[in-house]
Amino acid sequence: MAVYTRLGAEELARIIEAFDVGTLVSAKGIAEGVSNSNWLIETQRAGGSTQRFILTMYETRVDVADLPFFLNLLDHLAARECPVPRTIHDREGASYRLYDGKALALIEFLPGVSVSEPTPAQAHAVGQALAQVHHAARDFSGDRANGMGHAAWSELLTACGPDALAAIDPGLGELVGRELPLVSANWPAHLPHSVIHADLFPDNVLMLDDRVTGLIDFYFACVDITAYDVAVTHAAWCFSPDGSQFLPELSAALLSGYSAVCPLSAEEREALPLLARAASLRFLATRAYDWINTPTDALVTPKDPMAFARRLAFYGQPCNAKLFQET
Amino acid sequence: MAVYTRLGAEELARIIEAFDVGTLVSAKGIAEGVSNSNWLIETQRAGGSTQRFILTMYETRVDVADLPFFLNLLDHLAARECPVPRTIHDREGASYRLYDGKALALIEFLPGVSVSEPTPAQAHAVGQALAQVHHAARDFSGDRANGMGHAAWSELLTACGPDALAAIDPGLGELVGRELPLVSANWPAHLPHSVIHADLFPDNVLMLDDRVTGLIDFYFACVDITAYDVAVTHAAWCFSPDGSQFLPELSAALLSGYSAVCPLSAEEREALPLLARAASLRFLATRAYDWINTPTDALVTPKDPMAFARRLAFYGQPCNAKLFQET
Repeated sequence: MAVYTRLGAEELARIIEAFDVGTLVSAKGIAEGVSNSNWLIETQRAGGSTQRFILTMYETRVDVADLPFFLNLLDHLAARECPVPRTIHDREGASYRLYDGKALALIEFLPGVSVSEPTPAQAHAVGQALAQVHHAARDFSGDRANGMGHAAWSELLTACGPDALAAIDPGLGELVGRELPLVSANWPAHLPHSVIHADLFPDNVLMLDDRVTGLIDFYFACVDITAYDVAVTHAAWCFSPDGSQFLPELSAALLSGYSAVCPLSAEEREALPLLARAASLRFLATRAYDWINTPTDALVTPKDPMAFARRLAFYGQPCNAKLFQET
Repeated sequence: MAVYTRLGAEELARIIEAFDVGTLVSAKGIAEGVSNSNWLIETQRAGGSTQRFILTMYETRVDVADLPFFLNLLDHLAARECPVPRTIHDREGASYRLYDGKALALIEFLPGVSVSEPTPAQAHAVGQALAQVHHAARDFSGDRANGMGHAAWSELLTACGPDALAAIDPGLGELVGRELPLVSANWPAHLPHSVIHADLFPDNVLMLDDRVTGLIDFYFACVDITAYDVAVTHAAWCFSPDGSQFLPELSAALLSGYSAVCPLSAEEREALPLLARAASLRFLATRAYDWINTPTDALVTPKDPMAFARRLAFYGQPCNAKLFQET
């Protein structure tokens, strides 16, 4: 969460001129997104009406070659009434521009706030919105492999090494050593695939009361097993932040919201415990890697990898497999 | 520039409920201010009308005991039509509240952007706005000593030590050793005092075209020599950022804008070269201290102290004293 690039008002005004949105009247660097710089921009048209946008400058963690996939996806989903921000194309029709060697895009501002103590009604709405995206993306022609799939977690966790994992928690190396090959060997590659968000944490959902006003930050979106996205979202929404407490009402609400729009097949439900272990491993891997590789005096505090080790252990208990079954 | 405190949407909504401004519909942490956390907040009233505010949470660098001075000053100046944001008092009439041990205030959102390549017309407007503040603050009863006065710079520069200063630049120790006692010995304490902003850099001025829409960040405001504030603003606006190039058109415009509202006396004009050296020392001191004491792998890049050593050297040249004289 940072603004990495500093842009003066004159530069911002020149950037905005490339779009047919009026003139710049306000610009605030906002602390949002982990892989880019963002400004909340306000413009005014000759008639006096104002509009707000998010201007995103992509830093090194986003590959410019992936931008057409991410931005076309937003336009595709917005046209199908999914609650996602539209992209504003420039006067030449381009969805992103290059500025000083970096790509930038102008994206619709959406109202709403990110909840941190979701209610069952909110989890239900998020489940519905996720299913709406999966449904609306069926006729989206873009393709992108999951850069944070099994191979990536294995690599990150191997790079951590058993000693560093043991330093985080004495049992962590063993847990990872057991789960990693198990998830790999049982990966249900035959299940239906679609475009998935792959990172739908509460931070990436804007809400007003119980209504989803925006799903944002699609920069991990890719084509992968549809039910894996349900598993990621389940891991993200249905636990206390430290992973120590499973929240059954949120789980039931999320799954019922999702399946009201996109019914889950028996095969998908069967695979969900394993996919949830995979989702836990994925966030455990990036968090453990960041935990080990963040200098102790850095301004950013790395997130606790154990929060996902606890989820992984929870999903691995056979008695918890039933929570994904139809009720 | 950072958001130091993380507040969830539910916490923000509860905070906003203490004010009569409607319900929270958007909140973005913004990268503004060096001594506090800030959110750009939008609220909606029952009738549907929306309003925007800046919610500021004061971190350790601001003393809560000083808040009545800062916030009452904003209200005093806004009531006298200075372009400063009003504070929004809570339902009990308080200008700030305590939350989780920290003070927070809700402040009016103002449009405008901070320029980084000011034009003479903009410098003229800033000079006028500064004079308007000095004039409007004459009947403000609050009092606050300048915490970043001569004693503070001396202390910071002494704490740096001659070796560390020499490591920044071979001539820096000598320059500081010469200027520090000279400014002290010649301090024109008899000149008129008033409330001063004391930090009116372009970052702290919001503009639309050539108009000042907001002077912000009054957290160094204090009672000190009025003309010292002119000197600070001069040093902040009338040079290239690295201090290597004096910009005479901006200087003339700033001084003429200021004196159109508050004429500078002959004594004040006489003292301005010394006050400008003092202003240069003040920012040189904090920048040198931060330069020496910021870990090399920190995420924030400290600002170059030499940018103000160059201003100091410029103002110290006798031939440059004339620029403050009436033209």
